[in-house]
Amino acid sequence: MLGGMQSHEMRVTDILDHAAREATTREIVTYWADGCLQRSNWGEVGSMARQLASKLTQIGWNKADRVGTLAMNHLHHLVTYYGAAGAGGVVHTVNPRLSAEHIIYIVNHAEDRVFFFDAMFRPIIDALKEHMPCVEHFVCFDSDCGGDYMSFAEFIADGDAEFDWVTGSERDPCGLCYTSGTTGNPKGVLYEHRSNVIHAMSLCMPDVFDINARSVMLPIVPIFHANGWGAPYGCAMAGCGMVLSASNDPKVLWKLIREEGVTHSAGVPTVWLGLFGEMDASGGDYGDLRYVVIGGSAAPRAMIERLTQAGIEVGHAWGMTETSPIGTIGARPANWDAMSYEERIDLIQKQGRIPYGVQLRVVDEDGVVQPRDGKSSGHLQIKGVWIVQRYFKAEEDSLTDDGWFDTGDIAVIHPDGVMQITDRDKDIIKSGGEWISSIDLENTVVGCPGVAEAAAIGVPHPKWDERPMLFVVCKADATLTADDITSYLTDKIAKWWMPDEIRFVPELPHTATGKILKRALREQLRVEREGA
Amino acid sequence: MLGGMQSHEMRVTDILDHAAREATTREIVTYWADGCLQRSNWGEVGSMARQLASKLTQIGWNKADRVGTLAMNHLHHLVTYYGAAGAGGVVHTVNPRLSAEHIIYIVNHAEDRVFFFDAMFRPIIDALKEHMPCVEHFVCFDSDCGGDYMSFAEFIADGDAEFDWVTGSERDPCGLCYTSGTTGNPKGVLYEHRSNVIHAMSLCMPDVFDINARSVMLPIVPIFHANGWGAPYGCAMAGCGMVLSASNDPKVLWKLIREEGVTHSAGVPTVWLGLFGEMDASGGDYGDLRYVVIGGSAAPRAMIERLTQAGIEVGHAWGMTETSPIGTIGARPANWDAMSYEERIDLIQKQGRIPYGVQLRVVDEDGVVQPRDGKSSGHLQIKGVWIVQRYFKAEEDSLTDDGWFDTGDIAVIHPDGVMQITDRDKDIIKSGGEWISSIDLENTVVGCPGVAEAAAIGVPHPKWDERPMLFVVCKADATLTADDITSYLTDKIAKWWMPDEIRFVPELPHTATGKILKRALREQLRVEREGA
Repeated sequence: MLGGMQSHEMRVTDILDHAAREATTREIVTYWADGCLQRSNWGEVGSMARQLASKLTQIGWNKADRVGTLAMNHLHHLVTYYGAAGAGGVVHTVNPRLSAEHIIYIVNHAEDRVFFFDAMFRPIIDALKEHMPCVEHFVCFDSDCGGDYMSFAEFIADGDAEFDWVTGSERDPCGLCYTSGTTGNPKGVLYEHRSNVIHAMSLCMPDVFDINARSVMLPIVPIFHANGWGAPYGCAMAGCGMVLSASNDPKVLWKLIREEGVTHSAGVPTVWLGLFGEMDASGGDYGDLRYVVIGGSAAPRAMIERLTQAGIEVGHAWGMTETSPIGTIGARPANWDAMSYEERIDLIQKQGRIPYGVQLRVVDEDGVVQPRDGKSSGHLQIKGVWIVQRYFKAEEDSLTDDGWFDTGDIAVIHPDGVMQITDRDKDIIKSGGEWISSIDLENTVVGCPGVAEAAAIGVPHPKWDERPMLFVVCKADATLTADDITSYLTDKIAKWWMPDEIRFVPELPHTATGKILKRALREQLRVEREGA
Repeated sequence: MLGGMQSHEMRVTDILDHAAREATTREIVTYWADGCLQRSNWGEVGSMARQLASKLTQIGWNKADRVGTLAMNHLHHLVTYYGAAGAGGVVHTVNPRLSAEHIIYIVNHAEDRVFFFDAMFRPIIDALKEHMPCVEHFVCFDSDCGGDYMSFAEFIADGDAEFDWVTGSERDPCGLCYTSGTTGNPKGVLYEHRSNVIHAMSLCMPDVFDINARSVMLPIVPIFHANGWGAPYGCAMAGCGMVLSASNDPKVLWKLIREEGVTHSAGVPTVWLGLFGEMDASGGDYGDLRYVVIGGSAAPRAMIERLTQAGIEVGHAWGMTETSPIGTIGARPANWDAMSYEERIDLIQKQGRIPYGVQLRVVDEDGVVQPRDGKSSGHLQIKGVWIVQRYFKAEEDSLTDDGWFDTGDIAVIHPDGVMQITDRDKDIIKSGGEWISSIDLENTVVGCPGVAEAAAIGVPHPKWDERPMLFVVCKADATLTADDITSYLTDKIAKWWMPDEIRFVPELPHTATGKILKRALREQLRVEREGA
């Protein structure tokens, strides 16, 4: 050995230890589903997580065994992230909005041995538990959910708060999250200690989540989504305060933001629409809020404008379960001060820049890398330390021959390095050898007064291969005709993008994560044409 | 394999690739020693570093071979950091202020094969090169330094700007820096790709250097010091602008700060004294400067106050060559907003909080860990990914039995996690079984009107083991007596801390890094008493 630096495996439990030591009394506030407000802190999270890890060890935990959760955001869910990892195991967050069929599939595929759930989801557990023979212990996160269920507090009560974490390699798994995929069975992404630590370091950076010891983060995104967007790890690393709400009631969230001094928040666009409604009704201000990360789906321009005008920085982010999830984020570029208001909003509306740690490229149908000219769209591919290589229990890697993960998104990269999603590859409409972006079409239609929501899909066409068809949901008080839509679109889109058919519907089908389920629309059309 | 994330070795060349790709045109400004201003950018740094790596490969570079440098801060020095690493080698920065004897020792111990130097240091090379038989190529960083020396531009001219980096393990070495140790031969610290990448991620964080794409960093600290304080890596990771000055003339630095939009700077305290002098003379303002990292030695209170009052955040940092170098930094704590001005200055004057990635502890003479009570002082020990394990070519590790590196500092840790250095362990004065902090004593004496600098050392005493003796340098226009000093000290220190002897001297000896060389004072006393 020539000499060198110390050898340490980077484990997520080190992050919690850091928070428990250096930010011991920094508050973790929980608004429980029953309306109780609980004040804890990183020191207590550390002790409780050790109790849980100790308890799991007592019941014979093996390396990489899974703890399932069906839960909203709260102290006990956060503790489970670390307690499972600290026993050498894996926290497996299940999305409660999935179908019963998917939940059963996922829990059995993951082979969860212990399963924690919120009292509000007890009906799901009551109904499905007989189909989950792998689960040895069903435990309720809340203090009292009736039935024979043990509570989380009781479960960890005889665990040792000074327990020594199970150690191991930084490449060991510590988290599992299934994609709510629109086709086929859900696929599990297995996060590692190393990938989560490096991802958390990125998250803290000024051009990503920008969190530090003075920040108070309210992750409105459920932490059962996509690795909790990394917040459970990043916040501990920064030693910041956290506010966790088991309720997504805008009234509750708004009160928490203002009364708990929330400076940072992260969530999907629909959450902000709810908060705006609450704000309009109550007339309150934003309190200490200064930075909002919006991801999950594209943020509407009006939302970005409203927040920006209120002096709040918007970090428009793109990512997916397979990317831990940060892929890009719309951090302010070097020339921000020189940009006009319109240029800034235009920029934020795109998906943002590529942080250190990942690489992105756009390739055409033949796999040829496209230039960063803002025009050449193609398949968006990604690589990096926190990007999936192989789905859980899969037989082979999910990478291209040269090691990239294909995201299933269609995108362009602009000369300034800003990435812009133009569509999902399965939603792009291929007409006469050209591509029509269903997202662009929908975004344009949504600008039409009276339109609440819209979905564009490609329908088979003998001459053009596919032609666009539009489903439109009108606002409650609006009456629109197809002519109103086409007149509105006429000078806003290329002529050949004009939908061949426009259909008004009372509502659109959505996935468990709130995305429009275009597969259901296509299936509906198929049945209409071909019969079931 | 259960599944998992991608495998990537973290190499410092990835950081440069990131900057060259995502911050291509972000400026790297160099003020050369001849007064020329050169504007380059991360894209060009990438190309030049590849040319250098290619050239080294052409001359038969082996893994971990060393490139020595004797240079100030400029574009070519920055390029060398990455070019050496990209050839699979190691950049070895030599401090030009070291004695000829030490430079010869270090270059031979490091076995530097190629040696780059600034024209201003040509006299050193001319005089010493015959004692450096390992060096195959002496190359001048500047374009023309006379003699038979090839210039850096000529040297890399036939290197390939598209060269593929030499790849390898993230545990491979990429940097080497010798401590300017006050005793014995200098010892080399061998930085690794992994340690530098993780250290750079920490550096970017809001509570460390807080750098992002909009920042412009002027590292006033010479990048030959202590791994360049990580700035060559951290700045590339953030994709920020850099201003590099081969001159330390305060007039030049001040002009650069204001004309190049410098937002961040980092340097030792003496630099800021020079800049204040320049500012007082010129009456200029601080331009866009908003964050200043001060390290290397403790920042005087008046300096912290002056910067703070000007609205500039001061990050008072502690670290050493062995710690890459960040050990602690005085980032604002959670309760900053609630603190009074005096509390804030008191806090900043200490050495700061412990960032994620390192752990600190204080142990007594018997190795017992001391409480974080702000009172129990002892030996400061550190561990983490970017902390030395074994010095270059050493036969054994430099760690305690349980894996900690002893820093040689004496410190306390306060209940809020803030660390405070109270002395160097070899400088602490042990009197009657109690410790007298030489630093506290000196800092108090320096507050006495007319005192420019002071050094306290322990001298052997038959009854008390050691007693303090004070060396004082007066300001140019001041006349002081020992009585003046003792009267000043009377109500400011414990009675038994009062020096037994006070000696006025015209100047104090200093190390190459500007610290008082107490060893020379002790040796002088020994000679006086015992003869040579």
